[in-house]
Amino acid sequence: MVVFDGFTDLDFYLPWDLLNRVRLLKLKENWKVEILCDESQIFSAAGLPLTSSQPYSFAASCDALLFCSGPKTRELIKDKTFLNNFKSLESRQIIAAIDSGALILGALNLLQDKNATTYPTAFEALAEYGAKVKTNEAFISDGNIATGARCLSGDKLALWIIEKLIGAHISEKVFESVKPLC
Amino acid sequence: MVVFDGFTDLDFYLPWDLLNRVRLLKLKENWKVEILCDESQIFSAAGLPLTSSQPYSFAASCDALLFCSGPKTRELIKDKTFLNNFKSLESRQIIAAIDSGALILGALNLLQDKNATTYPTAFEALAEYGAKVKTNEAFISDGNIATGARCLSGDKLALWIIEKLIGAHISEKVFESVKPLC
Repeated sequence: MVVFDGFTDLDFYLPWDLLNRVRLLKLKENWKVEILCDESQIFSAAGLPLTSSQPYSFAASCDALLFCSGPKTRELIKDKTFLNNFKSLESRQIIAAIDSGALILGALNLLQDKNATTYPTAFEALAEYGAKVKTNEAFISDGNIATGARCLSGDKLALWIIEKLIGAHISEKVFESVKPLC
Repeated sequence: MVVFDGFTDLDFYLPWDLLNRVRLLKLKENWKVEILCDESQIFSAAGLPLTSSQPYSFAASCDALLFCSGPKTRELIKDKTFLNNFKSLESRQIIAAIDSGALILGALNLLQDKNATTYPTAFEALAEYGAKVKTNEAFISDGNIATGARCLSGDKLALWIIEKLIGAHISEKVFESVKPLC
């Protein structure tokens, strides 16, 4: 999970919980959710401290990446040092982004001609990266890349990552443990 | 928000985000979300540290309380020292609980003849407290008390608290900022 100072709480913590359930429910061995940031401690938008477990450069070693969101994405998409950490992503890697995190994928030139979405206020900015922006869907996957719009769609991104890495029989077990009854 | 060691991540962080949006979106002055626990630092089920801002005894000063969940609720419902912190709750206070947090409300004798729900594995235990357990609804409100079943219903509890304290026009603004597009 790629984070930065001022990250939107829900966009990190919602998928964080679901991704960790694979480990907590003992659905797969050696499953680890790392928190990537070059600063050792950052704060969420609502003020909670979060300690990183790996630097951004660890991205190349990850099976999947989930880019979180927050106002700082607008700076990061112009920050070459930050972007260089993710220049060597390979097609074997599963890549997801929520809300304005999708702009980082755009800046990495990963969304050219790809179906994608983002927070409504960032639709135009995302289109400028060549993405085919879908404005009426909360979750879009296109090959090895998925994007989510609005914070309460973070569950869909987490479940998609789990399905891509281990299979639908496992992502369904995770969803079963949290889904509302109605 | 009433928490304890080993709390379920989503049951705290999902309503935490929504409740804080009232402050972050500047929808009400002097709005503060406190984290109540007698231990200064605890850890979530998935391993994140969380620092409390007030002891449990602060409950009497709160306009609303949200009891989180986790395996430790099974000990807390037998812990008289813990329960005594919440013995003087008044009918003016808005009280919510998610999943097994509802068992704490039961142990406080707040659910006698009240409609309520909880995590499915705790339905029977909740019924023993005299609650009228609804097994097919994710969110139940009855007077000044609401309960939620399954982690992804935490948004409904947070929005209900905001509506009860400030009004539906504000809770709708908060929901508008996070709701999925479809």
